[in-house]
Formats: sequence, C-alpha cells, structure tokens
Amino acid sequence: MHPLSKRLSRYFLPVLKETPAGAEIVSHQLMLRAGLIRQTAAGIYAWLPLGLRVLDRIAAIVRCEQDRAGAIEMLMPTIQPADLWRESGRYDAYGPEMLRIADRHGRDMLYGPTNEEMVTAIFRDCVKSYRDMPRTLYHIQWKFRDEVRPRFGVMRGREFLMKDAYSFDMDMDGARASYDAMFTAYLRTFAALGLRAVPVKAPSGPIGGDLSHEFHILASTGESEIFYDSALDTVDIADPEAPAQLRRLYAMEAEEHAKIAACPVPPERLARRRGIEVGHIFFFGTKYTAAMGMQVQGRDGAMVTPLCGSYGIGVSRLAGAIIEASHDEAGIIWPEQVAPFDVGLVNLRPDEAAVMAACEALEAKLAVAGRSVLHDDTPARPGEKFATMDLVGLPWVVTVGPKGLAAGTVELKRRATGEKAELSLEAAIARIAG
Amino acid sequence: MHPLSKRLSRYFLPVLKETPAGAEIVSHQLMLRAGLIRQTAAGIYAWLPLGLRVLDRIAAIVRCEQDRAGAIEMLMPTIQPADLWRESGRYDAYGPEMLRIADRHGRDMLYGPTNEEMVTAIFRDCVKSYRDMPRTLYHIQWKFRDEVRPRFGVMRGREFLMKDAYSFDMDMDGARASYDAMFTAYLRTFAALGLRAVPVKAPSGPIGGDLSHEFHILASTGESEIFYDSALDTVDIADPEAPAQLRRLYAMEAEEHAKIAACPVPPERLARRRGIEVGHIFFFGTKYTAAMGMQVQGRDGAMVTPLCGSYGIGVSRLAGAIIEASHDEAGIIWPEQVAPFDVGLVNLRPDEAAVMAACEALEAKLAVAGRSVLHDDTPARPGEKFATMDLVGLPWVVTVGPKGLAAGTVELKRRATGEKAELSLEAAIARIAG
Repeated sequence: MHPLSKRLSRYFLPVLKETPAGAEIVSHQLMLRAGLIRQTAAGIYAWLPLGLRVLDRIAAIVRCEQDRAGAIEMLMPTIQPADLWRESGRYDAYGPEMLRIADRHGRDMLYGPTNEEMVTAIFRDCVKSYRDMPRTLYHIQWKFRDEVRPRFGVMRGREFLMKDAYSFDMDMDGARASYDAMFTAYLRTFAALGLRAVPVKAPSGPIGGDLSHEFHILASTGESEIFYDSALDTVDIADPEAPAQLRRLYAMEAEEHAKIAACPVPPERLARRRGIEVGHIFFFGTKYTAAMGMQVQGRDGAMVTPLCGSYGIGVSRLAGAIIEASHDEAGIIWPEQVAPFDVGLVNLRPDEAAVMAACEALEAKLAVAGRSVLHDDTPARPGEKFATMDLVGLPWVVTVGPKGLAAGTVELKRRATGEKAELSLEAAIARIAG
Repeated sequence: MHPLSKRLSRYFLPVLKETPAGAEIVSHQLMLRAGLIRQTAAGIYAWLPLGLRVLDRIAAIVRCEQDRAGAIEMLMPTIQPADLWRESGRYDAYGPEMLRIADRHGRDMLYGPTNEEMVTAIFRDCVKSYRDMPRTLYHIQWKFRDEVRPRFGVMRGREFLMKDAYSFDMDMDGARASYDAMFTAYLRTFAALGLRAVPVKAPSGPIGGDLSHEFHILASTGESEIFYDSALDTVDIADPEAPAQLRRLYAMEAEEHAKIAACPVPPERLARRRGIEVGHIFFFGTKYTAAMGMQVQGRDGAMVTPLCGSYGIGVSRLAGAIIEASHDEAGIIWPEQVAPFDVGLVNLRPDEAAVMAACEALEAKLAVAGRSVLHDDTPARPGEKFATMDLVGLPWVVTVGPKGLAAGTVELKRRATGEKAELSLEAAIARIAG
C-alpha cells in the first residue's frame, strides 16, 4: 500500500450531513462538512486528518518554490518578547489585533502576527559583512491576529499558518532582484497549486514605489473586486517572460481603480472579477533595519543599512480559497496538486472476499504508480459512500462491486467533470496514472 | 544537485567561536555555537536553517513510526479556550506553568501545554458508536510551559515541539493493545533516530497500573539517574520479542529505586547510569472522557465511557538530547539518521576552476546517490573550514584541494571516528553511499 493510503474503517473522517449553523461561505461550510477542520474557539480551528493532508501539501509546494528561488528556511517561535516590537516602535502602534500576553514574571510578550522585527534582530546579530549578503530567509509558522469578528472559517481565522519571507540587500539593485525573484516564485507557487492568481499592483507607502503586489485567486465569492486587462488571462505562466508581461498589464483592486483618472485599458479588454487575496509582497527599504540599528560593512568598508522586503502567503487561507475557486453543489473539487488522496475507492461489498481482494489489488497497483488511495471499506450504504466521495472531492473515484467484477470492470469517475467509464481494473489504473 | 544540498556562500550558518555565556550544558553550548538555534526570549528559540533541518528529520521519523503503528495525524491549534480546561477541572489545578491569556474580548484563553481536553472534546463531538473505535490520534505541535527558570536550551525551553498521541478504546483489552502498540512504536522511533533508549517503569496513579513508562536516552550529562538490569543493553531492538523482554527487565529512576525494599536484580547486573527523558506514555482510563461526558454506544447498545492513554515525545528536546549523547570536544557528532546534511564538502580553493569543477562533480554524483551536501565554497581559511565542519558534525567530510586533485585523490573523513583516507573521488562516493 502507498504510505499515505488509508482505510476509512480505521480513519478519522467525521463528515456532516447538515451544513453547520454560522458557516456563511461555501469553503467554510464544505471544510466543516467534509471533515477537514473543526472549530475549537472563535476563529481557531483544529485540522482533522483530511484537512492536515491538504495543508501539508500546500505548505510543501510553497516551500519547494521558496527553496527554488534561493530563500532559506528557518523557524521562528510563535511567542515574541514585546521589547523587540518596542525597538521598531510597533508595539504601541499595533492595534488590538495583537494578542498581548504577560508571562509568569509579568514580562510583556505577544503571539507574533508577523516577524519583521524578529528576523531583523536575528540577522542583525549574526551578519556583519557584505560577504554574508544578500539573503532571503523564510519560515512557515502559525501566527495570531485577534480579529474583532473572526469569520469565514480559515479564510479569516485568528490562528493561521503563513509563509513569510524577508529579504536583506546591500543596495537597490539587489533589493529589486530579490523582489523580482519572489514575484516569479509566487507565480510558480500558485500555478503549482493548480490555481490562476492575478498579481495586482498594491498601494504602497512612499518607500515602496512599484514594488508592492497582492496576488488574488479569482473566485465569484471573493471578498475583493479586481479590474484587470483581460490579456492577463492568456499569459502562459510557464513562459520565462510571464513575470515581466504580468507586471506590465493593468490590474487594480476596485478601490484603487476608482482613483485612476483614465484607465489605460480599453473598456472591451477590461475584466472585472472577484478575487481572494492569498499573497502579498512588498519592499519597505530600511524601515526596520534603520529603526533596529542593523548595519553591515560594505565592500568599500563603509557601513550600510540593508534594504528589505517581506513576502507573505496565507497557507491555511489557501485551503479555503482553493475550495472557493473549485467546488460544486455536491462538494469540493480538489486540484490534483493538493488533493488529500489521489483516488477514492468505493468498495460496494467489503464483506465479499472477491470484492475486497480486487480492492486490495487496486490499492497495491496504484501504490506502484505512486497514487494514494482512500479506501471506503465501511459497511455504509452505496449512496452514502458516493455522497461522501463527492463531498471530500478526490480527483478520481473508482467503484468496485460484484456485478462489475463479474463483467471484468470497475467504474472510474473523474470528480471534476463527472465523466464516468466502465473499464477493466488495468485500464482504470492506466487512466489514473496517465 | 540534491534538492537539500546547499552552498555555504549563499546559506545562513552563523557559527560562534566562543561559547556563549549562560549556556550551562554542552548541547545548549553546541547548538548555539553550531548555528542551530538562537534565543529570542528566555526559554524561547528560533531554529536557524541547520537546526530546522535536524528538527524536521526528527519529526519525520517520529511521524513515520506513529503512522506505522496506526495512529492518525491531525493538528490541533496552539491557543485553547479556558472553558475546555474548566470541563476537566484542570484550569484552576494547573499551576503557573500554564500561559494564560485574555483575548481582546476578555475571554480566557491559554497556550496549550498538552491536549487531553481538546482531543477528547473533538473526538466526543464526532464519534458516537463502537464502529468508529478504537482510534489513536496524534499531532506534532508547539506547546508552551511557562517554566519559572527555563534553562538548558531546548532541553527545558518554554516553547517546545512535542508529538502527543491519544488513544480511545472501548475496553481494557483494547486499551492495553493500544498502549503496547505505542510502546513498540517508541522503541522503533528511538532506534530509527540512532539512539538507545531505556524504557523505565514510571510511577502512575491508582488508574495506571503497570501502564506507564518513561523513555530515557543514556548520557553522562543526563538530568535523571537510572538503575536498570544491564541485560537491557543486550536486547536486540529489531527482535519482535524486544518490547516484551524490555518490559520484563528491571529499570527504575533513582527516586523510585530507593523505595524498593529488595531490588530484584543481582548487584553485579545492576547498571547505574544517567539519562534524559525524551518520551512518556501512560494509561489514564476514563479520567477525561468521564469528566467531559464522552460516551459511545457499544455493540450491545449500552453506552460506554472510552478508556484513554496519552503518549508524548519531546521532538525539540530530542535535538538537544541527541547532542548530549553524541559529541566530542570539537563539536557535534550527528547520527546519520538526523544529520542536517549527509556530507560536508571542504573546498580548499573555490577560486580555482579545476577544484570548483571537482566539487561540483562530487555534489552531482552524491545527489545521484541520494546524499545531501553542505559545500563550503567560501573564501575562509582551511583551518576555519575544518573547525566549522567538526563543530556542525556532519557524518562525512570530503576535502578537495589542488594537491590532492593532482594526485587524483580527495580526503574522506568519518566524523564519528576521525578516521581519514585519501581516495579517488569515485571511491569516496562509493564509501559514503556504502
């Protein structure tokens, strides 16, 4: 069996028939119903086994593209000393979203909502010379923002998983190169997740210039409204020129779009769609390095205050955003890249030895092909099993029963299209592994 | 290049020449000096890139053995509502080690020091029938215990990473089987980490009976003292009978040993060694399920209050414990199973094209053999490079320089033994890939 394959009779997948009260948006409803998450306090969720697998797959893809871009992974703690935020001046400035804590000795601590201060302090204390520059450091860690009214499930939770990266450069050319590398990494990340993300120019302070972008996934239920040049839709992300093309093309959030005196895009090419923000990258120069006294010696001996950018992806939020972008009335439709299992196996008669044997053979052969299987070997009724499979949304569903086996076939269903076929077991495996 | 291989010139490995003040024990000193961790507040550490790789490898091994034992992974949040702990009666009983927090609405929260209450609440709300039993659920998550005097680095930190598993069974036979499965999983886990762990009978309350064990790694700097039957040292962990043998053999912490009227082990066979506790498993019956009103319907229709056990491994603590058990004057000696890189590559002349080309060939060939490389391609002096490699303790060090290359050789050093050999590049790779 594939190391990630599971039998439902020994798994923990508490699906719900009814839509729970209080879940306003479809991703929240489906995540609760499909047994991905459970709320443990307002805006705080436990990730049940199926949900954790999705979260881990998203994180793995984010990590892979960060590594490819040359960013270096580390892991900062969740609890931070307030003094660090006093150095930057943000401790008092940050609003009630900051979860402030006093430890047993009365020292002011906080649950990190972000890590500019901490990473700057660590880098400042370790790096003294241009020889150790530039660097981009990242971590994937839980954050806390004490939202006044948490809602929409993991889309606006209080405890959430985020990938945040921080670049340190000696000069503006370097900082721009670091920013560009992350811009490209973000496009690759969302494509690898099976998503189409639109990079939207974000308003930035006096420092940022044009180096601030948000990445939005298009979904009709999205919280934000975006106006963009529909030429964006035809850019091939695999093209090395894609990042440059995308940055040239017009894309703005509604609020910013409204401020534009004359839109540069002809009306017939201007698309208006709803989106969900899943990433934000921006350059902020010496804001924290200057406030926190970080300097490194340049090649010419002069001391330089490094220029920095920060780059976030909402990892737990993505789980919800993907569902907003990919579902139907029956349930979730996971992109193959992040599905918790590759194949759902509906065993119509787990009590019949021949059917069970065929299912076991299927599990084993799919394992050889590198595909993980969730095998429903429970005594539940067929209708219930099919409904559960549609709800949890695995890319392929194979149904094995005595009638089909007598005819030498199994049923193969593609979740995304609903397309079904009666095939031999071998042909079904070949199609899935295809 | 292997996906995990790195060039030091673009990595973040801030090693320290001096032993930092305040680090009392050797693992703490070496973790700081080798650039594995940095303290960000008392008892709270950031895991630098090299340290995170070790932590990830330890967690992966723990996860693998939990999965093999049939435990199901999920992920509970770090912040918990106090009301959950009021249900069990532990909110007031738990001492000042609990980090208590009020959120912006004044609701009592806490940073979870453990998860019996939360996992019981989740399982209670999802499972109603014997058909969904038994189950063992686990997660690997950061915990917080507000130690009055945190010290010894990650060995007694405040924010620490722990694997905690919880079993739910319908009857005592089942509970004992769940306990036994975890006992075996723990032996396998420590063996897979390259460690020898002694299972010590732990004192347990009136419920526990003989179902409570601590696992200690032997190290002369260990905090606890253990008396045990030296026959334990000769048990082959790979033997299927090992768990039963180990449980029969005498092993007690000094405090408990002192209470024994007559030690069952003859003096010549009684070993007395120091140990570090890295795991604890115990059965506690219906303590939380009863207090929190969890019942499931049995096969005969009667309601049953499930019997539970909990099973912890200190994942971040293990990083320190391994160093306590495996180091010398020059630095860390990582067991191969958890080393951050398989091979350290000392490039004596990164400015010479032929030397760099040989190093690149080595990286590529080791990647094919599945071995990751930390390539020191910096302009530092040879002596400094060798000292850094000894300090960070990778299992193999290959030195490539112009003289050796002229003679067709590289130097291969085994960190654990100090054994060195001049070999052809191919022979060195063959030895490493062994």
